[in-house]
Amino acid sequence: MSAANPKVIDIKDRSGITTQPLPGSEKIYITGSRDDIRVPFRQISLTDTPNRDPNLPGEPNAPVMVYDTSGIYTDTTETIDLEKGLTPIRQQWIEERDDTEVLPAFSSNFTRDQDGLEFDIPLFTNRRLPRKAKPGKNVSQMHYARQGIITPEMEYIAIRESMGRAALQAKGELPADKPNHITPEFVRKEVAEGRAIIPANVNHPEAEPMIIGRNFLVKINANIGNSATTSSIEEEVEKMVWSTRWGGDTVMDLSTGKHIHQTREWIIRNSPVPIGTVPLYQALEKVNGIAEDLTWEVFRDTLIEQAEQGVSYFTIHAGIRLAHIPLTVNRTTGIVSRGGSIMAAWCLAHHEESFLYTHFEDICEIMKAYDVSFSLGDGLRPGSQADANDEAQFAELRTLGELTHIAWKHDVQVMIEGPGHVPMHKIKENMDLQLEVCHEAPFYTLGPLVTDIAPGYDHITSGIGAAMIGWFGTAMLCYVTPKEHLGLPNKDDVKVGIITYKIAAHAADLAKGHPGAHERDDAISKARFEFRWEDQFNLGLDPDTARAFHDETLPQPKAKVAHFCSMCGPKFCSMKISHDVKEAFAEKSEEFKAGGSKIYHQI
Amino acid sequence: MSAANPKVIDIKDRSGITTQPLPGSEKIYITGSRDDIRVPFRQISLTDTPNRDPNLPGEPNAPVMVYDTSGIYTDTTETIDLEKGLTPIRQQWIEERDDTEVLPAFSSNFTRDQDGLEFDIPLFTNRRLPRKAKPGKNVSQMHYARQGIITPEMEYIAIRESMGRAALQAKGELPADKPNHITPEFVRKEVAEGRAIIPANVNHPEAEPMIIGRNFLVKINANIGNSATTSSIEEEVEKMVWSTRWGGDTVMDLSTGKHIHQTREWIIRNSPVPIGTVPLYQALEKVNGIAEDLTWEVFRDTLIEQAEQGVSYFTIHAGIRLAHIPLTVNRTTGIVSRGGSIMAAWCLAHHEESFLYTHFEDICEIMKAYDVSFSLGDGLRPGSQADANDEAQFAELRTLGELTHIAWKHDVQVMIEGPGHVPMHKIKENMDLQLEVCHEAPFYTLGPLVTDIAPGYDHITSGIGAAMIGWFGTAMLCYVTPKEHLGLPNKDDVKVGIITYKIAAHAADLAKGHPGAHERDDAISKARFEFRWEDQFNLGLDPDTARAFHDETLPQPKAKVAHFCSMCGPKFCSMKISHDVKEAFAEKSEEFKAGGSKIYHQI
Repeated sequence: MSAANPKVIDIKDRSGITTQPLPGSEKIYITGSRDDIRVPFRQISLTDTPNRDPNLPGEPNAPVMVYDTSGIYTDTTETIDLEKGLTPIRQQWIEERDDTEVLPAFSSNFTRDQDGLEFDIPLFTNRRLPRKAKPGKNVSQMHYARQGIITPEMEYIAIRESMGRAALQAKGELPADKPNHITPEFVRKEVAEGRAIIPANVNHPEAEPMIIGRNFLVKINANIGNSATTSSIEEEVEKMVWSTRWGGDTVMDLSTGKHIHQTREWIIRNSPVPIGTVPLYQALEKVNGIAEDLTWEVFRDTLIEQAEQGVSYFTIHAGIRLAHIPLTVNRTTGIVSRGGSIMAAWCLAHHEESFLYTHFEDICEIMKAYDVSFSLGDGLRPGSQADANDEAQFAELRTLGELTHIAWKHDVQVMIEGPGHVPMHKIKENMDLQLEVCHEAPFYTLGPLVTDIAPGYDHITSGIGAAMIGWFGTAMLCYVTPKEHLGLPNKDDVKVGIITYKIAAHAADLAKGHPGAHERDDAISKARFEFRWEDQFNLGLDPDTARAFHDETLPQPKAKVAHFCSMCGPKFCSMKISHDVKEAFAEKSEEFKAGGSKIYHQI
Repeated sequence: MSAANPKVIDIKDRSGITTQPLPGSEKIYITGSRDDIRVPFRQISLTDTPNRDPNLPGEPNAPVMVYDTSGIYTDTTETIDLEKGLTPIRQQWIEERDDTEVLPAFSSNFTRDQDGLEFDIPLFTNRRLPRKAKPGKNVSQMHYARQGIITPEMEYIAIRESMGRAALQAKGELPADKPNHITPEFVRKEVAEGRAIIPANVNHPEAEPMIIGRNFLVKINANIGNSATTSSIEEEVEKMVWSTRWGGDTVMDLSTGKHIHQTREWIIRNSPVPIGTVPLYQALEKVNGIAEDLTWEVFRDTLIEQAEQGVSYFTIHAGIRLAHIPLTVNRTTGIVSRGGSIMAAWCLAHHEESFLYTHFEDICEIMKAYDVSFSLGDGLRPGSQADANDEAQFAELRTLGELTHIAWKHDVQVMIEGPGHVPMHKIKENMDLQLEVCHEAPFYTLGPLVTDIAPGYDHITSGIGAAMIGWFGTAMLCYVTPKEHLGLPNKDDVKVGIITYKIAAHAADLAKGHPGAHERDDAISKARFEFRWEDQFNLGLDPDTARAFHDETLPQPKAKVAHFCSMCGPKFCSMKISHDVKEAFAEKSEEFKAGGSKIYHQI
């Protein structure tokens, strides 16, 4: 690593990092009970509703505030310096709790070994020493919640989830027509009871607090990460920024190629959202890809390595037991989870229960010392419609329920991963059984894909299942890109995957009746009906694409106020005619009523 | 029109028409009880499952047969001549019924007037004279069905819907493991009882018979048509061919620009699928776009004009009554159906019930003379989540139920159009109410879109709702393209819309347990698990895109047999490891069983 390395300069000038606000939008902050609880939102400015008489002023439309995952990358008042990393906004809160200490050195052997090596890639040099619970302490948000403590993270989340209503409520300024049940105390209670998790490693103080639970907004996760065949560090950092720009609530770094440790450092230090990983992937790299050579010691060191970097949740496939493996051999698609197949191979090679299962309480001890949450992996999820809801899948799910109880005994936060490929009529059974056997721990599903026959469009096959299972109660949806089953997604694929999953999550919020979820729909529909084209674009999930599609056939500036688009042309726009009808009705109904007609009330 | 017109040559050399079979596929035909019942299917050839020992032969995989809407355009043995039009495969059946006659001239004043004009566009010259029921005769498929007659169309459909099983059954050759309830008699009964329609105008004998009903495969419709701002005849013909190539079961020609009549002739004469229209659009063109100038006479002439060209179903917004209009004035998005807004404007201007409603039985007389089916339009469908399931929408739906009874009195086939924009939790109410008040007439829905906030992605917002409502019982799904709300779709948009809706329809077929629907899923999943990449591409809904996505990162020919893709790389492919696990299990389980171990059966 040297200053002359051109890749360092690439990172420094961040030419490849997307940093502008979304069109028509600016970052605003709502402050909580203390000045350092500053909750970000994206505020979308709207134009006036035009007056029918162009000489009269229009009627103003209030700006619309939306949940914002994009961090300071969309804040024009902030300076972005990837080499420095983001401001550790939670550091003060963590220090005030006085239950952690900064270690004199990294605890992982692997980390220390890596620090002695030379690399031909840029390294993140502004690293902090790791923080860990003081001996005997448990620093999980669940632990605090169960003590009755409302942490600043919880208050932050209450403001964020209630679109600022919790802050108004605390100040006694909440409008009567906008009630709010998402108080800091409600957040605490949901976490205490295990129905929600706050993934918030003490070593990722840069992350903006967020919550995953079915009584909150449905979240989405974007997977990034290189594989042996393609991709670079710069691309991965930009994929994280890009993912959060479009609405990714968490990002999983699933890298399996070279320099996993160094890439992750860059990502975490610059990420405003919690990062999840599957530690097994890196552990397997450490034993040269030979599953049977995996050991508890290698795995344990990997957990510590990643916990001290700041990973906030670990996918751990501890639910695969030796006895489950025979249930998979006659499946159409066997075991399709990478972690699942690796652990199954290990179990068979050693003819033992997996070290993830036998060392589960040891893992809990690590998790609670850094506040890493479990994402208990569904290693036996179905990889085809034919295998959906089979004995293998549900046997593992029951084991995950048992492990949830053990984790909770340690006050360690847990979510449960779910399928996979499931036809629509079998989706609800997944949700219902998960709630029952996993004691309402949050469900975190991949899709599910409702058919197998559309490679190239699996963001859609899975988006259908995701919307449905989100409505039924899934707390977080893991996105699927158009490249699923075919190759590693590029930036465009990541965006399409995210937008598809924002649609699924928002549709679920609407169907669940999440307070305020419909406000954005109402605003965009009003804009649409009033031909405020720019507002329609800006209120959408992807203003750039909406504008580009519109302009493909009508690029002229005046088309942005026209009362039609190229779909129907000027004479055939129903909404234009509908305005005329509305006006005519106002006139005619008076006229007809005066004439004694009752026809409008006949049916 | 002259031979020197270069546009005629454009059509003749059909350089812009897509005519190759899909990759790995060939057209096959299954013959019914008579030689001229030749039902087309696409047969996808598969490669062998490789043997673990590369010196031994692989295990063959039977070809997979799928429903095929693409007509002769994908049949390499056929000659395509757009100027001649397709072979009228139903003509003999229609003539044998001896209840129609060929008229000496077109009945519509408009058609006769047009025939006297000169045009600067190519005209379809190989036109037939129109056919119509003999006086007093009713030529609808429903009429035959109610007489107990199984038409060749019904037998054709039984073979098509049962993937050939009905033909085997008739010959006594049906395998015991593949039962079939979709017999010709079942088709007849469903049509007789109004639960299904066969859109089959006697003037479109070129169309391959198909059925729309909830006890059959879920169908999809693609909308094409020019508008005043863009598009040409050649593009519209190709859009029809393109739509059917990717799986459009019917095509609606929604043209509102110039030369609607002439464009439609080209489309119908070359279309293997039934064509639907909204006659009101053309009627409005005839009165220069002024809704209040519409008259029953203009509308009636338009119905006859289009019926004699061969349109198989008409969207008719007869359910909008004067009394419904006040219910729409306080809506967020008013009236968003073009036909609905036009008729509302007419009703208000005249302060009368619409001529569609008052002349409904006159319309029935026209429909039964050509066998045109009703698609009763939902002029008051909600255009936003806020307006979903409101009084206006359901009041109109009840009126459509009343009209269904009237049409059935005339043995005229009916389907009912449905919404629109509806959040997930309100979708089922739509389906249940439609079945109840419309007496199980087939439902034909546009989406519904489950959120309003994603312009540019409304194929997805609506695909979610479409899959769900298809599962609940909707018989045909009207596609939505990514350009919805923004502009006129181009060819790429049409394809994306179709594939999205094929996904929704197929997911619904799976969830409904349609016999055989899972066979394609099973075949593609087996191919995926066996790394038969080419088979995976070819079994998908869009082989071209799947292949292109795969090749983006791994274009080398050897990657097509590789046991990994760029997503996970060679060491991390779960399915590769899963094969090793399966093999290891086979070895080890014998070994362990011999040793007396019971561990595999412990849980």
